[in-house]
Amino acid sequence: MRTIGILGGGQLGRMLALAGYPLGLRFRFLDPSPQACAGDVGELIVGDYSDPQVLAQFVAGLDCVTYEFENVPLDAASTLATFCPVYPPPAALATAQSRLIEKQFFSRLNIPVVPFVPIDDTSDLDHARHELGLPMLFKLRRYGYDGKGQVVIRTADELPHAWAELNSEPVLAERLIPFERELSLIAVRSLRGTMAYYPLIENLHQGGILHRSLVPAMPPQHALQLEAETYARRVLDALDYVGVLVLEFFQLDGHLIINEMAPRVHNSGHWTIEGAETSQFENHLRAILGLPLGATTLRGHVAMLNLIGSVPDLAAVLKFAGTHLHTYNKAPRAGRKVGHITVRADDPATLQQMLADVAQVVG
Amino acid sequence: MRTIGILGGGQLGRMLALAGYPLGLRFRFLDPSPQACAGDVGELIVGDYSDPQVLAQFVAGLDCVTYEFENVPLDAASTLATFCPVYPPPAALATAQSRLIEKQFFSRLNIPVVPFVPIDDTSDLDHARHELGLPMLFKLRRYGYDGKGQVVIRTADELPHAWAELNSEPVLAERLIPFERELSLIAVRSLRGTMAYYPLIENLHQGGILHRSLVPAMPPQHALQLEAETYARRVLDALDYVGVLVLEFFQLDGHLIINEMAPRVHNSGHWTIEGAETSQFENHLRAILGLPLGATTLRGHVAMLNLIGSVPDLAAVLKFAGTHLHTYNKAPRAGRKVGHITVRADDPATLQQMLADVAQVVG
Repeated sequence: MRTIGILGGGQLGRMLALAGYPLGLRFRFLDPSPQACAGDVGELIVGDYSDPQVLAQFVAGLDCVTYEFENVPLDAASTLATFCPVYPPPAALATAQSRLIEKQFFSRLNIPVVPFVPIDDTSDLDHARHELGLPMLFKLRRYGYDGKGQVVIRTADELPHAWAELNSEPVLAERLIPFERELSLIAVRSLRGTMAYYPLIENLHQGGILHRSLVPAMPPQHALQLEAETYARRVLDALDYVGVLVLEFFQLDGHLIINEMAPRVHNSGHWTIEGAETSQFENHLRAILGLPLGATTLRGHVAMLNLIGSVPDLAAVLKFAGTHLHTYNKAPRAGRKVGHITVRADDPATLQQMLADVAQVVG
Repeated sequence: MRTIGILGGGQLGRMLALAGYPLGLRFRFLDPSPQACAGDVGELIVGDYSDPQVLAQFVAGLDCVTYEFENVPLDAASTLATFCPVYPPPAALATAQSRLIEKQFFSRLNIPVVPFVPIDDTSDLDHARHELGLPMLFKLRRYGYDGKGQVVIRTADELPHAWAELNSEPVLAERLIPFERELSLIAVRSLRGTMAYYPLIENLHQGGILHRSLVPAMPPQHALQLEAETYARRVLDALDYVGVLVLEFFQLDGHLIINEMAPRVHNSGHWTIEGAETSQFENHLRAILGLPLGATTLRGHVAMLNLIGSVPDLAAVLKFAGTHLHTYNKAPRAGRKVGHITVRADDPATLQQMLADVAQVVG
């Protein structure tokens, strides 16, 4: 009986545990909130990630530690790594925690990125304007998620205001490109070095929050899939990565530009529970335990709709055949991800009809 | 947040809970054993089913009670029913707990059964022999499962010995028929009266224990499916049933003869987790909560292999793509169901090849 420790007790941890019980695993979560929703399905330790006593209590008896969000303090990951294996490797955390380091890392691996300029003080603003042109985007280098910590700049006048809006902290300036769509790739690499990839996912965001994912991205494009896998392999190898890694791309002129990576299971992969032979959650666990990876093959045509703010009436959603509801048992709150719906069909036309039906219930 | 109480804390309860968390449910189990494996995934109350204090502790705050084995004491079910709904209805329990009452019930509904004679004392032995002929089968009327409490009689001399072997308790004598194969049907009826059926399952037993289930039963036979659903509908209606109900049949001369029923989720339906659009576990929960039932459509060709006695090395099983392992976290013991493997493929030939591969690892 192996016990897996998970830093973070949100819905990703919850779904990891639900995927892991059939493999005979047990789970312990660490989260600052006693309401952390993963506490329903495993042992929850409430405490601060940077408290050594809390970490000692958390790690006692664990076989392996993983995490469900990328802002885990690096010191915590390093401390835990002296007691038991921590996967994905802390180097992946360090890279993903800084948008600047991340972009520089991708560039070194010859993975196309949008032009970017680091801004440390006001003297860099003019330089950025000349290098990138307008419009551009300012992004906080740390703790950004769901579109938070980002400002769009359309005129030169707006530059100093935008920087002030982000508290004059060091930011990353990026050229704002007119991409055609957003795609993500879920990759996984096992402790034994085996790699596997799910089909490219097409993602639609609203207000910076993932609204809908569709698989396969239509029309399915073999060349794009290969491009994405090639880039993913470079990242996995460079970091000696273990676990699920998600790369987010923009598509422009038939090619991929990388936007960012997440060293963890990912919202855009929730459809894998019903829509793939093996879910991202099970494959993450298999990977960190050195077990053979499960097949990543697609089963039909699948869409995932996030439930933001509140969960609709269960009966209203479940009356549509082929819909699968996942509630996270989180208190409703504007802008909060509280659940998702997966819709699966055997062909794209049926899927579109089902989505039209479900749209009557969820926006 | 609704909390479901489950009488019994074995693997069926465990899988019910894993299916129910995404619907936002919580679970509490009652089992006499502190090792009950469902305790990993929900609150476990350890105690006797017939202890009123234990029942009061168990039922406090529950929204609904169900059970995962059919030998729940009727008094316990009735006591609990005064506090909250108990589904399936206790009448189904009463019927399924006695092989005699069950057979008489099927006969009344004009569902074909094998000829049977109740035996209460030695004077009935001759009568049974004349009515049924030989060979025949003695079955204890209560608490039989996995082939336990059954004796085959091939010669008249064996009759008194067989009865003595079953402690001269009242038994049911049945004609032993040369059936072609065993099939089961998983039916479900919701609190709202809606019914749904999964495709017929072909089951292979070894030493009285289910060894392998195969879906669809090959070749798929539309007429048999309709026959099975017709019989199931009669049972569901007669009992005003709520939840999953499983009927076990013998196939003889292209028709079905009913053997027994289980008023609960069932081992022969474990394949539905990966092989059907909605699992039997989720549909049981939807049914008892009055939610719309999920689609019971098959996804490909599926086989389920029971792991009896011990769980093989995880890596050895998982190396075959398309295999899904479910361990129950039960101590290994001869003859004990400790897990199962589901193998899924898109066509029957591939499934057979995969089964041949997996057979290298599990007998």
